Amino acid sequence: MPRPPLQDAPGLLKRDAELVTLALDGVLNRLEGVPAKLVESIRYSVMAGGKRLRPTLVLECARACAGGTAPPAALAAACAIELIHTFSLVHDDLPAMDNDDLRRGVPTNHKVFGEAMAILAGDAMVIMAFRVLATQAPEDLAAALVKELAKASGPSGMIGGQVLDMEGEKRTLSMDELKNLHGKKTGALITAACRLGAISAKASMQMLEAVSGYGQHLGLAFQIVDDLLDVTASPQQLGKSTGKDQSKGKNTYPALMGIDRSRSEAEKQYEQAIRALEPLGNRADGLRALARFVVDRKN
Amino acid sequence: MPRPPLQDAPGLLKRDAELVTLALDGVLNRLEGVPAKLVESIRYSVMAGGKRLRPTLVLECARACAGGTAPPAALAAACAIELIHTFSLVHDDLPAMDNDDLRRGVPTNHKVFGEAMAILAGDAMVIMAFRVLATQAPEDLAAALVKELAKASGPSGMIGGQVLDMEGEKRTLSMDELKNLHGKKTGALITAACRLGAISAKASMQMLEAVSGYGQHLGLAFQIVDDLLDVTASPQQLGKSTGKDQSKGKNTYPALMGIDRSRSEAEKQYEQAIRALEPLGNRADGLRALARFVVDRKN
Repeated sequence: MPRPPLQDAPGLLKRDAELVTLALDGVLNRLEGVPAKLVESIRYSVMAGGKRLRPTLVLECARACAGGTAPPAALAAACAIELIHTFSLVHDDLPAMDNDDLRRGVPTNHKVFGEAMAILAGDAMVIMAFRVLATQAPEDLAAALVKELAKASGPSGMIGGQVLDMEGEKRTLSMDELKNLHGKKTGALITAACRLGAISAKASMQMLEAVSGYGQHLGLAFQIVDDLLDVTASPQQLGKSTGKDQSKGKNTYPALMGIDRSRSEAEKQYEQAIRALEPLGNRADGLRALARFVVDRKN
Repeated sequence: MPRPPLQDAPGLLKRDAELVTLALDGVLNRLEGVPAKLVESIRYSVMAGGKRLRPTLVLECARACAGGTAPPAALAAACAIELIHTFSLVHDDLPAMDNDDLRRGVPTNHKVFGEAMAILAGDAMVIMAFRVLATQAPEDLAAALVKELAKASGPSGMIGGQVLDMEGEKRTLSMDELKNLHGKKTGALITAACRLGAISAKASMQMLEAVSGYGQHLGLAFQIVDDLLDVTASPQQLGKSTGKDQSKGKNTYPALMGIDRSRSEAEKQYEQAIRALEPLGNRADGLRALARFVVDRKN
Protein backbone atom coordinates (compact mmCIF):
# COMPACT_ATOMS: atom_id res chain seq x y z
CA MET A 1 0.00 0.00 0.00
CA PRO A 2 1.62 3.34 -1.04
CA ARG A 3 2.04 5.89 1.76
CA PRO A 4 -0.18 8.95 1.42
CA PRO A 5 1.61 12.25 0.78
CA LEU A 6 3.05 13.84 3.93
CA GLN A 7 0.74 15.98 6.02
CA ASP A 8 -2.38 14.52 4.40
CA ALA A 9 -4.22 13.74 7.61
CA PRO A 10 -7.69 13.42 6.04
CA GLY A 11 -6.30 10.94 3.48
CA LEU A 12 -4.54 8.99 6.18
CA LEU A 13 -7.66 8.88 8.35
CA LYS A 14 -9.81 7.85 5.40
CA ARG A 15 -7.49 5.02 4.42
CA ASP A 16 -7.08 3.71 7.94
CA ALA A 17 -10.78 4.08 8.70
CA GLU A 18 -11.49 1.85 5.71
CA LEU A 19 -8.91 -0.67 6.85
CA VAL A 20 -10.24 -0.82 10.41
CA THR A 21 -13.88 -0.85 9.34
CA LEU A 22 -13.14 -3.82 7.10
CA ALA A 23 -11.33 -5.61 9.91
CA LEU A 24 -14.17 -4.87 12.36
CA ASP A 25 -16.65 -6.17 9.82
CA GLY A 26 -14.62 -9.39 9.76
CA VAL A 27 -14.74 -9.61 13.56
CA LEU A 28 -18.53 -9.14 13.50
CA ASN A 29 -18.98 -11.69 10.71
CA ARG A 30 -17.04 -14.30 12.64
CA LEU A 31 -19.43 -14.08 15.61
CA GLU A 32 -21.11 -17.47 15.95
CA GLY A 33 -24.24 -18.50 17.81
CA VAL A 34 -25.04 -14.93 18.81
CA PRO A 35 -28.71 -13.81 19.00
CA ALA A 36 -29.51 -11.85 15.84
CA LYS A 37 -30.77 -8.78 17.70
CA LEU A 38 -27.55 -8.55 19.71
CA VAL A 39 -25.40 -8.74 16.57
CA GLU A 40 -27.59 -6.05 15.02
CA SER A 41 -27.20 -3.77 18.02
CA ILE A 42 -23.41 -4.25 18.18
CA ARG A 43 -23.08 -3.75 14.43
CA TYR A 44 -25.27 -0.64 14.51
CA SER A 45 -22.87 1.22 16.78
CA VAL A 46 -19.55 -0.26 15.64
CA MET A 47 -20.35 0.42 11.99
CA ALA A 48 -21.83 3.89 12.54
CA GLY A 49 -18.49 5.27 11.52
CA GLY A 50 -16.92 8.15 13.32
CA LYS A 51 -13.47 9.40 12.46
CA ARG A 52 -11.72 6.23 13.67
CA LEU A 53 -9.06 8.48 15.17
CA ARG A 54 -7.92 6.02 17.85
CA PRO A 55 -7.36 3.05 15.52
CA THR A 56 -5.62 5.37 13.05
CA LEU A 57 -3.29 6.41 15.88
CA VAL A 58 -2.55 2.74 16.63
CA LEU A 59 -1.68 2.03 13.00
CA GLU A 60 0.27 5.22 12.43
CA CYS A 61 2.29 4.84 15.65
CA ALA A 62 3.06 1.25 14.65
CA ARG A 63 4.24 2.47 11.23
CA ALA A 64 6.34 5.23 12.79
CA CYS A 65 8.02 2.79 15.19
CA ALA A 66 8.43 0.00 12.63
CA GLY A 67 9.69 2.43 10.02
CA GLY A 68 7.30 1.01 7.44
CA THR A 69 4.28 -1.27 7.24
CA ALA A 70 2.19 -1.80 10.38
CA PRO A 71 2.49 -5.38 11.71
CA PRO A 72 -0.69 -7.56 12.01
CA ALA A 73 -0.79 -7.06 15.80
CA ALA A 74 -1.44 -3.36 15.16
CA LEU A 75 -4.60 -4.11 13.20
CA ALA A 76 -5.86 -6.32 16.05
CA ALA A 77 -5.08 -3.52 18.52
CA ALA A 78 -6.78 -0.97 16.25
CA CYS A 79 -9.98 -3.05 16.24
CA ALA A 80 -9.79 -3.60 20.00
CA ILE A 81 -9.43 0.08 20.81
CA GLU A 82 -12.33 1.04 18.54
CA LEU A 83 -14.52 -1.59 20.21
CA ILE A 84 -13.64 -0.14 23.63
CA HIS A 85 -14.25 3.40 22.42
CA THR A 86 -17.61 2.46 20.91
CA PHE A 87 -18.65 0.61 24.07
CA SER A 88 -17.87 3.74 26.09
CA LEU A 89 -20.07 5.85 23.81
CA VAL A 90 -22.99 3.41 23.97
CA HIS A 91 -22.92 3.26 27.78
CA ASP A 92 -22.22 7.00 28.12
CA ASP A 93 -25.33 7.79 26.08
CA LEU A 94 -27.64 5.70 28.30
CA PRO A 95 -30.52 7.46 30.09
CA ALA A 96 -28.90 6.77 33.47
CA MET A 97 -25.71 8.43 32.23
CA ASP A 98 -25.65 11.32 29.74
CA ASN A 99 -29.08 10.49 28.27
CA ASP A 100 -28.21 11.39 24.69
CA ASP A 101 -30.42 10.79 21.66
CA LEU A 102 -27.98 11.42 18.83
CA ARG A 103 -24.53 9.98 18.14
CA ARG A 104 -22.44 9.94 14.98
CA GLY A 105 -25.41 11.48 13.21
CA VAL A 106 -27.87 8.71 14.03
CA PRO A 107 -30.12 7.86 17.01
CA THR A 108 -28.20 6.41 19.96
CA ASN A 109 -28.12 2.64 20.46
CA HIS A 110 -30.66 2.58 23.29
CA LYS A 111 -33.06 4.76 21.29
CA VAL A 112 -33.12 2.06 18.59
CA PHE A 113 -32.66 -1.18 20.55
CA GLY A 114 -33.81 -0.26 24.06
CA GLU A 115 -31.84 0.24 27.24
CA ALA A 116 -31.31 -3.40 28.16
CA MET A 117 -29.92 -4.28 24.74
CA ALA A 118 -27.69 -1.20 24.70
CA ILE A 119 -26.20 -2.19 28.06
CA LEU A 120 -25.58 -5.75 26.85
CA ALA A 121 -24.22 -4.65 23.47
CA GLY A 122 -21.74 -2.37 25.24
CA ASP A 123 -20.74 -5.21 27.57
CA ALA A 124 -20.24 -7.47 24.57
CA MET A 125 -17.99 -4.91 22.85
CA VAL A 126 -15.60 -4.71 25.83
CA ILE A 127 -15.26 -8.47 25.94
CA MET A 128 -14.84 -8.69 22.16
CA ALA A 129 -12.01 -6.15 22.36
CA PHE A 130 -9.98 -8.39 24.63
CA ARG A 131 -10.89 -11.46 22.61
CA VAL A 132 -9.62 -9.84 19.43
CA LEU A 133 -6.27 -9.12 21.11
CA ALA A 134 -5.96 -12.65 22.47
CA THR A 135 -6.91 -14.36 19.22
CA GLN A 136 -5.47 -12.09 16.55
CA ALA A 137 -2.24 -10.73 18.01
CA PRO A 138 0.83 -13.01 18.15
CA GLU A 139 0.99 -14.89 21.45
CA ASP A 140 4.17 -13.15 22.64
CA LEU A 141 2.44 -9.75 22.38
CA ALA A 142 -1.07 -10.57 23.56
CA ALA A 143 -0.44 -10.22 27.31
CA ALA A 144 1.28 -6.84 26.92
CA LEU A 145 -1.50 -5.54 24.67
CA VAL A 146 -4.28 -6.73 26.99
CA LYS A 147 -2.47 -5.20 29.97
CA GLU A 148 -2.11 -1.84 28.22
CA LEU A 149 -5.70 -1.66 26.99
CA ALA A 150 -7.15 -2.81 30.32
CA LYS A 151 -5.12 -0.31 32.30
CA ALA A 152 -6.17 2.59 30.07
CA SER A 153 -9.85 1.71 29.83
CA GLY A 154 -10.48 0.44 33.36
CA PRO A 155 -11.17 2.09 36.71
CA SER A 156 -7.77 3.87 36.85
CA GLY A 157 -8.35 5.17 33.33
CA MET A 158 -11.40 5.83 31.20
CA ILE A 159 -14.05 4.39 33.51
CA GLY A 160 -12.57 6.36 36.40
CA GLY A 161 -12.71 9.48 34.23
CA GLN A 162 -16.38 8.93 33.53
CA VAL A 163 -17.04 8.75 37.26
CA LEU A 164 -15.09 11.99 37.83
CA ASP A 165 -17.05 13.62 35.01
CA MET A 166 -20.33 12.57 36.58
CA GLU A 167 -19.31 13.65 40.07
CA GLY A 168 -17.97 16.94 38.73
CA GLU A 169 -21.42 17.95 37.48
CA LYS A 170 -22.29 18.89 41.04
CA ARG A 171 -19.49 21.44 41.54
CA THR A 172 -16.80 23.56 39.87
CA LEU A 173 -13.49 21.78 39.49
CA SER A 174 -10.05 23.33 39.77
CA MET A 175 -7.86 23.32 36.63
CA ASP A 176 -5.82 20.45 38.07
CA GLU A 177 -8.94 18.42 38.72
CA LEU A 178 -10.21 19.11 35.20
CA LYS A 179 -6.86 18.02 33.71
CA ASN A 180 -6.99 14.83 35.75
CA LEU A 181 -10.58 14.18 34.63
CA HIS A 182 -9.77 14.74 30.95
CA GLY A 183 -6.52 12.78 31.24
CA LYS A 184 -8.49 9.77 32.39
CA LYS A 185 -11.74 10.14 30.44
CA THR A 186 -10.22 10.82 27.01
CA GLY A 187 -6.47 11.01 27.38
CA ALA A 188 -5.88 7.50 28.71
CA LEU A 189 -7.40 5.80 25.68
CA ILE A 190 -5.74 8.11 23.14
CA THR A 191 -2.39 7.54 24.84
CA ALA A 192 -3.08 3.81 24.91
CA ALA A 193 -3.82 3.88 21.17
CA CYS A 194 -0.33 5.27 20.58
CA ARG A 195 1.32 2.84 22.98
CA LEU A 196 -0.52 -0.17 21.54
CA GLY A 197 0.83 0.78 18.13
CA ALA A 198 4.35 0.99 19.50
CA ILE A 199 4.04 -2.30 21.40
CA SER A 200 2.68 -3.99 18.25
CA ALA A 201 5.82 -2.87 16.44
CA LYS A 202 8.05 -4.07 19.29
CA ALA A 203 9.34 -0.52 19.61
CA SER A 204 12.36 0.49 21.71
CA MET A 205 11.76 2.11 25.09
CA GLN A 206 12.74 5.48 23.60
CA MET A 207 10.14 5.19 20.86
CA LEU A 208 7.50 3.99 23.29
CA GLU A 209 8.16 7.04 25.44
CA ALA A 210 8.03 9.36 22.44
CA VAL A 211 4.59 8.16 21.33
CA SER A 212 3.36 8.13 24.94
CA GLY A 213 4.24 11.79 25.35
CA TYR A 214 2.66 12.55 22.00
CA GLY A 215 -0.50 10.71 23.01
CA GLN A 216 -0.82 12.48 26.35
CA HIS A 217 -0.61 15.95 24.87
CA LEU A 218 -2.72 15.03 21.86
CA GLY A 219 -5.37 13.59 24.16
CA LEU A 220 -5.61 16.81 26.10
CA ALA A 221 -5.68 18.90 22.92
CA PHE A 222 -8.41 16.64 21.56
CA GLN A 223 -10.56 17.12 24.64
CA ILE A 224 -10.13 20.89 24.74
CA VAL A 225 -11.21 21.08 21.09
CA ASP A 226 -14.11 18.77 21.90
CA ASP A 227 -15.20 21.11 24.67
CA LEU A 228 -14.86 24.09 22.30
CA LEU A 229 -16.90 22.44 19.56
CA ASP A 230 -19.69 21.70 22.04
CA VAL A 231 -19.97 25.48 22.47
CA THR A 232 -19.27 26.69 18.93
CA ALA A 233 -20.48 24.01 16.49
CA SER A 234 -23.95 22.92 15.36
CA PRO A 235 -25.48 19.46 15.95
CA GLN A 236 -25.39 18.96 12.15
CA GLN A 237 -21.64 19.52 12.13
CA LEU A 238 -20.99 17.15 15.04
CA GLY A 239 -23.60 14.46 14.48
CA LYS A 240 -24.49 14.72 18.17
CA SER A 241 -26.28 17.25 20.34
CA THR A 242 -24.33 20.38 21.28
CA GLY A 243 -24.46 22.89 24.11
CA LYS A 244 -25.06 19.94 26.41
CA ASP A 245 -21.96 20.49 28.56
CA GLN A 246 -23.27 23.78 29.81
CA SER A 247 -26.83 22.59 30.30
CA LYS A 248 -25.53 19.69 32.38
CA GLY A 249 -23.18 21.87 34.39
CA LYS A 250 -20.16 19.94 33.09
CA ASN A 251 -16.69 21.21 33.82
CA THR A 252 -14.98 22.13 30.56
CA TYR A 253 -12.07 24.23 29.38
CA PRO A 254 -14.26 27.00 27.92
CA ALA A 255 -16.30 27.10 31.14
CA LEU A 256 -13.22 27.35 33.32
CA MET A 257 -10.93 29.59 31.23
CA GLY A 258 -13.04 31.01 28.38
CA ILE A 259 -12.91 30.31 24.65
CA ASP A 260 -9.77 32.24 23.72
CA ARG A 261 -7.58 30.85 26.47
CA SER A 262 -8.91 27.36 25.70
CA ARG A 263 -7.86 27.78 22.06
CA SER A 264 -4.35 28.79 23.03
CA GLU A 265 -4.14 25.94 25.55
CA ALA A 266 -5.05 23.47 22.77
CA GLU A 267 -2.32 25.03 20.64
CA LYS A 268 0.17 24.66 23.50
CA GLN A 269 -0.67 20.99 23.92
CA TYR A 270 -0.29 20.52 20.16
CA GLU A 271 3.20 21.97 20.28
CA GLN A 272 4.19 19.70 23.15
CA ALA A 273 2.80 16.69 21.27
CA ILE A 274 4.96 17.60 18.27
CA ARG A 275 8.01 18.09 20.47
CA ALA A 276 7.58 14.62 21.96
CA LEU A 277 7.89 13.11 18.49
CA GLU A 278 11.42 14.43 17.88
CA PRO A 279 13.21 11.10 18.46
CA LEU A 280 11.18 9.56 15.65
CA GLY A 281 12.36 12.01 12.98
CA ASN A 282 10.43 12.08 9.73
CA ARG A 283 8.92 8.64 10.36
CA ALA A 284 6.43 10.53 12.50
CA ASP A 285 5.21 12.95 9.82
CA GLY A 286 1.85 11.20 9.66
CA LEU A 287 1.46 11.64 13.41
CA ARG A 288 2.32 15.32 13.10
CA ALA A 289 -0.34 15.75 10.44
CA LEU A 290 -2.87 13.96 12.62
CA ALA A 291 -2.12 16.27 15.55
CA ARG A 292 -2.67 19.33 13.40
CA PHE A 293 -5.91 17.81 12.14
CA VAL A 294 -7.13 17.14 15.67
CA VAL A 295 -6.61 20.76 16.69
CA ASP A 296 -8.08 22.25 13.52
CA ARG A 297 -11.07 19.90 13.16
CA LYS A 298 -14.54 21.34 12.86
CA ASN A 299 -16.39 18.19 13.93
CA MET B 1 -2.15 -26.49 52.80
CA PRO B 2 -3.62 -29.92 53.78
CA ARG B 3 -6.38 -31.24 51.50
CA PRO B 4 -9.83 -31.30 53.10
CA PRO B 5 -11.29 -34.78 53.69
CA LEU B 6 -12.81 -36.31 50.57
CA GLN B 7 -16.37 -35.38 49.71
CA ASP B 8 -16.31 -32.35 52.01
CA ALA B 9 -17.68 -29.87 49.53
CA PRO B 10 -18.70 -27.21 52.06
CA GLY B 11 -15.17 -27.30 53.54
CA LEU B 12 -13.63 -27.07 50.10
CA LEU B 13 -15.86 -24.16 49.12
CA LYS B 14 -15.17 -22.38 52.40
CA ARG B 15 -11.41 -22.72 52.04
CA ASP B 16 -11.35 -21.67 48.39
CA ALA B 17 -13.80 -18.82 48.99
CA GLU B 18 -11.39 -17.47 51.62
CA LEU B 19 -8.45 -17.85 49.25
CA VAL B 20 -10.23 -16.06 46.38
CA THR B 21 -11.70 -13.36 48.58
CA LEU B 22 -8.22 -12.60 49.90
CA ALA B 23 -6.82 -12.46 46.37
CA LEU B 24 -9.68 -10.23 45.19
CA ASP B 25 -9.07 -7.95 48.15
CA GLY B 26 -5.48 -7.67 46.95
CA VAL B 27 -6.65 -6.78 43.44
CA LEU B 28 -8.93 -4.07 44.85
CA ASN B 29 -6.21 -2.71 47.15
CA ARG B 30 -3.81 -2.37 44.25
CA LEU B 31 -6.19 -0.09 42.34
CA GLU B 32 -4.51 3.29 41.99
CA GLY B 33 -5.90 6.70 41.13
CA VAL B 34 -9.49 5.42 41.10
CA PRO B 35 -12.31 7.69 42.35
CA ALA B 36 -13.22 6.59 45.90
CA LYS B 37 -16.91 6.12 45.14
CA LEU B 38 -16.12 3.79 42.23
CA VAL B 39 -13.81 1.65 44.37
CA GLU B 40 -16.53 1.53 47.01
CA SER B 41 -19.14 0.42 44.51
CA ILE B 42 -16.88 -2.28 43.01
CA ARG B 43 -15.83 -3.47 46.46
CA TYR B 44 -19.45 -3.56 47.66
CA SER B 45 -20.45 -6.15 45.08
CA VAL B 46 -17.19 -8.10 44.76
CA MET B 47 -16.91 -8.51 48.52
CA ALA B 48 -20.60 -9.28 49.12
CA GLY B 49 -19.64 -12.92 49.20
CA GLY B 50 -21.70 -15.54 47.49
CA LYS B 51 -20.62 -19.15 47.34
CA ARG B 52 -17.63 -18.46 45.09
CA LEU B 53 -18.55 -21.61 43.20
CA ARG B 54 -16.93 -20.60 39.92
CA PRO B 55 -13.50 -19.70 41.35
CA THR B 56 -13.61 -22.87 43.46
CA LEU B 57 -14.18 -24.83 40.25
CA VAL B 58 -11.16 -23.13 38.67
CA LEU B 59 -8.93 -24.04 41.61
CA GLU B 60 -10.24 -27.56 42.05
CA CYS B 61 -10.00 -28.36 38.32
CA ALA B 62 -6.45 -27.03 38.38
CA ARG B 63 -5.66 -29.29 41.34
CA ALA B 64 -7.27 -32.30 39.68
CA CYS B 65 -5.29 -31.76 36.47
CA ALA B 66 -2.02 -30.91 38.21
CA GLY B 67 -2.42 -33.80 40.63
CA GLY B 68 -1.64 -31.52 43.57
CA THR B 69 -1.33 -27.84 44.38
CA ALA B 70 -3.04 -25.32 42.07
CA PRO B 71 -0.52 -23.21 40.11
CA PRO B 72 -0.53 -19.37 40.52
CA ALA B 73 -2.25 -18.91 37.14
CA ALA B 74 -5.28 -20.68 38.59
CA LEU B 75 -5.65 -18.08 41.33
CA ALA B 76 -5.52 -15.30 38.73
CA ALA B 77 -8.15 -17.12 36.67
CA ALA B 78 -10.27 -17.67 39.79
CA CYS B 79 -10.27 -13.92 40.51
CA ALA B 80 -11.00 -13.11 36.88
CA ILE B 81 -14.00 -15.39 36.63
CA GLU B 82 -15.47 -14.08 39.88
CA LEU B 83 -15.09 -10.51 38.60
CA ILE B 84 -16.92 -11.44 35.40
CA HIS B 85 -19.63 -13.26 37.35
CA THR B 86 -20.11 -10.31 39.71
CA PHE B 87 -20.24 -7.85 36.81
CA SER B 88 -22.99 -9.95 35.22
CA LEU B 89 -25.02 -9.86 38.44
CA VAL B 90 -24.64 -6.09 38.84
CA HIS B 91 -25.76 -5.38 35.27
CA ASP B 92 -28.48 -8.08 35.38
CA ASP B 93 -30.01 -6.44 38.45
CA LEU B 94 -30.30 -2.99 36.81
CA PRO B 95 -33.76 -1.44 36.43
CA ALA B 96 -33.51 -1.71 32.63
CA MET B 97 -32.76 -5.44 33.00
CA ASP B 98 -34.20 -7.63 35.79
CA ASN B 99 -34.79 -4.69 38.14
CA ASP B 100 -33.86 -6.53 41.34
CA ASP B 101 -33.51 -4.96 44.78
CA LEU B 102 -31.80 -7.76 46.70
CA ARG B 103 -28.67 -9.76 45.92
CA ARG B 104 -26.52 -11.95 48.14
CA GLY B 105 -28.65 -10.80 51.06
CA VAL B 106 -28.00 -7.06 50.62
CA PRO B 107 -29.48 -4.27 48.46
CA THR B 108 -28.32 -4.44 44.84
CA ASN B 109 -25.49 -2.19 43.68
CA HIS B 110 -27.69 0.35 41.90
CA LYS B 111 -29.96 0.60 44.94
CA VAL B 112 -26.97 1.77 46.98
CA PHE B 113 -24.84 3.66 44.45
CA GLY B 114 -27.34 4.65 41.77
CA GLU B 115 -27.78 3.34 38.24
CA ALA B 116 -24.94 5.21 36.57
CA MET B 117 -22.38 4.05 39.12
CA ALA B 118 -23.66 0.46 38.93
CA ILE B 119 -23.24 0.47 35.16
CA LEU B 120 -19.71 1.86 35.44
CA ALA B 121 -18.74 -0.46 38.31
CA GLY B 122 -19.86 -3.45 36.24
CA ASP B 123 -17.89 -2.16 33.25
CA ALA B 124 -14.84 -1.76 35.47
CA MET B 125 -15.11 -5.34 36.74
CA VAL B 126 -15.06 -6.82 33.22
CA ILE B 127 -11.95 -4.86 32.35
CA MET B 128 -10.30 -5.73 35.68
CA ALA B 129 -10.92 -9.41 34.98
CA PHE B 130 -8.86 -9.30 31.81
CA ARG B 131 -6.23 -7.14 33.45
CA VAL B 132 -5.79 -9.66 36.26
CA LEU B 133 -5.21 -12.43 33.70
CA ALA B 134 -2.72 -10.36 31.72
CA THR B 135 -0.76 -9.18 34.75
CA GLN B 136 -0.92 -12.12 37.13
CA ALA B 137 -0.82 -15.21 34.94
CA PRO B 138 2.51 -16.28 33.38
CA GLU B 139 2.97 -14.72 29.96
CA ASP B 140 2.82 -18.05 28.09
CA LEU B 141 -0.66 -18.74 29.49
CA ALA B 142 -2.21 -15.25 29.43
CA ALA B 143 -3.43 -15.31 25.82
CA ALA B 144 -5.08 -18.72 26.19
CA LEU B 145 -6.78 -17.68 29.43
CA VAL B 146 -8.04 -14.37 28.00
CA LYS B 147 -9.33 -16.18 24.91
CA GLU B 148 -11.20 -18.75 26.99
CA LEU B 149 -12.78 -16.24 29.36
CA ALA B 150 -13.73 -13.83 26.57
CA LYS B 151 -15.35 -16.55 24.49
CA ALA B 152 -17.43 -17.81 27.41
CA SER B 153 -18.52 -14.44 28.72
CA GLY B 154 -19.03 -12.57 25.45
CA PRO B 155 -21.81 -12.41 22.86
CA SER B 156 -21.52 -16.11 21.90
CA GLY B 157 -21.66 -17.05 25.59
CA MET B 158 -23.02 -15.40 28.70
CA ILE B 159 -24.04 -12.05 27.18
CA GLY B 160 -25.80 -13.88 24.37
CA GLY B 161 -27.60 -15.98 26.97
CA GLN B 162 -28.82 -12.87 28.75
CA VAL B 163 -30.27 -11.60 25.50
CA LEU B 164 -32.02 -14.94 24.87
CA ASP B 165 -33.36 -14.85 28.44
CA MET B 166 -34.75 -11.36 27.90
CA GLU B 167 -36.26 -12.18 24.52
CA GLY B 168 -37.71 -15.42 25.90
CA GLU B 169 -39.84 -13.51 28.38
CA LYS B 170 -42.23 -12.75 25.56
CA ARG B 171 -42.99 -16.38 24.59
CA THR B 172 -42.72 -20.03 25.61
CA LEU B 173 -39.49 -21.67 24.53
CA SER B 174 -39.03 -25.26 23.40
CA MET B 175 -36.85 -27.53 25.56
CA ASP B 176 -34.02 -27.20 23.04
CA GLU B 177 -34.25 -23.43 23.13
CA LEU B 178 -34.24 -23.44 26.93
CA LYS B 179 -31.17 -25.71 26.99
CA ASN B 180 -29.41 -23.37 24.58
CA LEU B 181 -30.36 -20.35 26.71
CA HIS B 182 -29.14 -21.97 29.95
CA GLY B 183 -26.03 -23.32 28.25
CA LYS B 184 -25.06 -19.79 27.32
CA LYS B 185 -26.35 -17.79 30.28
CA THR B 186 -24.97 -19.99 33.06
CA GLY B 187 -23.32 -23.01 31.47
CA ALA B 188 -20.68 -21.17 29.44
CA LEU B 189 -19.10 -19.49 32.47
CA ILE B 190 -19.23 -22.62 34.65
CA THR B 191 -17.63 -24.64 31.86
CA ALA B 192 -15.05 -21.89 31.37
CA ALA B 193 -14.23 -22.00 35.09
CA CYS B 194 -13.34 -25.68 34.72
CA ARG B 195 -11.39 -25.14 31.51
CA LEU B 196 -9.47 -22.16 32.93
CA GLY B 197 -8.39 -24.40 35.81
CA ALA B 198 -7.19 -27.06 33.40
CA ILE B 199 -5.39 -24.54 31.17
CA SER B 200 -3.70 -23.02 34.25
CA ALA B 201 -2.36 -26.48 35.06
CA LYS B 202 -1.22 -27.06 31.45
CA ALA B 203 -3.48 -30.10 31.35
CA SER B 204 -3.42 -32.71 28.59
CA MET B 205 -6.15 -32.59 25.94
CA GLN B 206 -7.81 -35.62 27.57
CA MET B 207 -7.99 -33.88 30.92
CA LEU B 208 -9.23 -30.64 29.37
CA GLU B 209 -12.02 -32.57 27.67
CA ALA B 210 -12.90 -34.35 30.90
CA VAL B 211 -13.34 -31.14 32.88
CA SER B 212 -15.18 -29.49 29.94
CA GLY B 213 -17.76 -32.29 29.91
CA TYR B 214 -18.03 -32.07 33.68
CA GLY B 215 -18.55 -28.31 33.48
CA GLN B 216 -21.22 -28.52 30.80
CA HIS B 217 -23.37 -30.98 32.71
CA LEU B 218 -22.70 -29.31 36.04
CA GLY B 219 -23.70 -25.95 34.56
CA LEU B 220 -27.02 -27.31 33.39
CA ALA B 221 -27.64 -29.07 36.73
CA PHE B 222 -26.80 -25.81 38.52
CA GLN B 223 -29.32 -23.84 36.47
CA ILE B 224 -32.12 -26.39 36.89
CA VAL B 225 -31.58 -26.30 40.66
CA ASP B 226 -31.53 -22.50 40.50
CA ASP B 227 -34.88 -22.53 38.70
CA LEU B 228 -36.26 -24.97 41.30
CA LEU B 229 -35.07 -22.86 44.23
CA ASP B 230 -36.76 -19.80 42.77
CA VAL B 231 -40.04 -21.73 43.12
CA THR B 232 -39.43 -23.62 46.36
CA ALA B 233 -37.11 -21.52 48.55
CA SER B 234 -37.65 -18.33 50.57
CA PRO B 235 -35.90 -14.99 49.95
CA GLN B 236 -34.20 -15.44 53.36
CA GLN B 237 -32.68 -18.73 52.20
CA LEU B 238 -31.48 -17.33 48.89
CA GLY B 239 -30.48 -13.79 49.80
CA LYS B 240 -32.41 -12.59 46.74
CA SER B 241 -36.06 -12.27 45.78
CA THR B 242 -37.85 -15.50 44.78
CA GLY B 243 -40.84 -16.35 42.65
CA LYS B 244 -39.60 -13.76 40.21
CA ASP B 245 -39.15 -16.15 37.28
CA GLN B 246 -42.86 -16.85 37.14
CA SER B 247 -43.90 -13.24 37.66
CA LYS B 248 -41.63 -12.19 34.79
CA GLY B 249 -42.82 -14.99 32.53
CA LYS B 250 -39.30 -16.45 32.38
CA ASN B 251 -38.77 -19.80 30.75
CA THR B 252 -37.53 -22.29 33.36
CA TYR B 253 -37.31 -26.04 33.82
CA PRO B 254 -40.11 -26.18 36.42
CA ALA B 255 -42.33 -24.04 34.15
CA LEU B 256 -41.68 -26.26 31.14
CA MET B 257 -41.58 -29.74 32.69
CA GLY B 258 -42.82 -29.43 36.28
CA ILE B 259 -40.95 -29.76 39.56
CA ASP B 260 -40.54 -33.54 39.71
CA ARG B 261 -39.25 -33.97 36.18
CA SER B 262 -36.91 -31.00 36.71
CA ARG B 263 -35.47 -32.72 39.81
CA SER B 264 -34.80 -35.92 37.90
CA GLU B 265 -33.29 -33.95 35.00
CA ALA B 266 -30.87 -32.27 37.46
CA GLU B 267 -29.98 -35.71 38.78
CA LYS B 268 -29.37 -36.96 35.23
CA GLN B 269 -27.06 -34.05 34.50
CA TYR B 270 -25.23 -34.74 37.77
CA GLU B 271 -24.61 -38.32 36.72
CA GLN B 272 -23.27 -37.26 33.34
CA ALA B 273 -20.97 -34.74 35.02
CA ILE B 274 -19.59 -37.51 37.24
CA ARG B 275 -19.15 -39.83 34.26
CA ALA B 276 -17.14 -37.17 32.41
CA LEU B 277 -14.60 -37.15 35.27
CA GLU B 278 -13.64 -40.82 34.88
CA PRO B 279 -10.28 -40.19 33.15
CA LEU B 280 -9.17 -38.16 36.18
CA GLY B 281 -9.62 -41.02 38.68
CA ASN B 282 -9.56 -40.11 42.36
CA ARG B 283 -7.83 -36.79 41.67
CA ALA B 284 -11.33 -35.54 40.86
CA ASP B 285 -12.95 -36.48 44.16
CA GLY B 286 -13.24 -32.81 45.14
CA LEU B 287 -15.06 -32.10 41.87
CA ARG B 288 -17.41 -35.01 42.51
CA ALA B 289 -18.22 -33.61 45.93
CA LEU B 290 -18.84 -30.17 44.45
CA ALA B 291 -21.27 -31.60 41.89
CA ARG B 292 -23.25 -33.36 44.61
CA PHE B 293 -23.27 -30.13 46.60
CA VAL B 294 -24.57 -28.14 43.62
CA VAL B 295 -27.50 -30.50 43.13
CA ASP B 296 -28.37 -30.78 46.83
CA ARG B 297 -27.95 -27.12 47.77
CA LYS B 298 -30.76 -25.27 49.47
CA ASN B 299 -29.56 -21.76 48.54
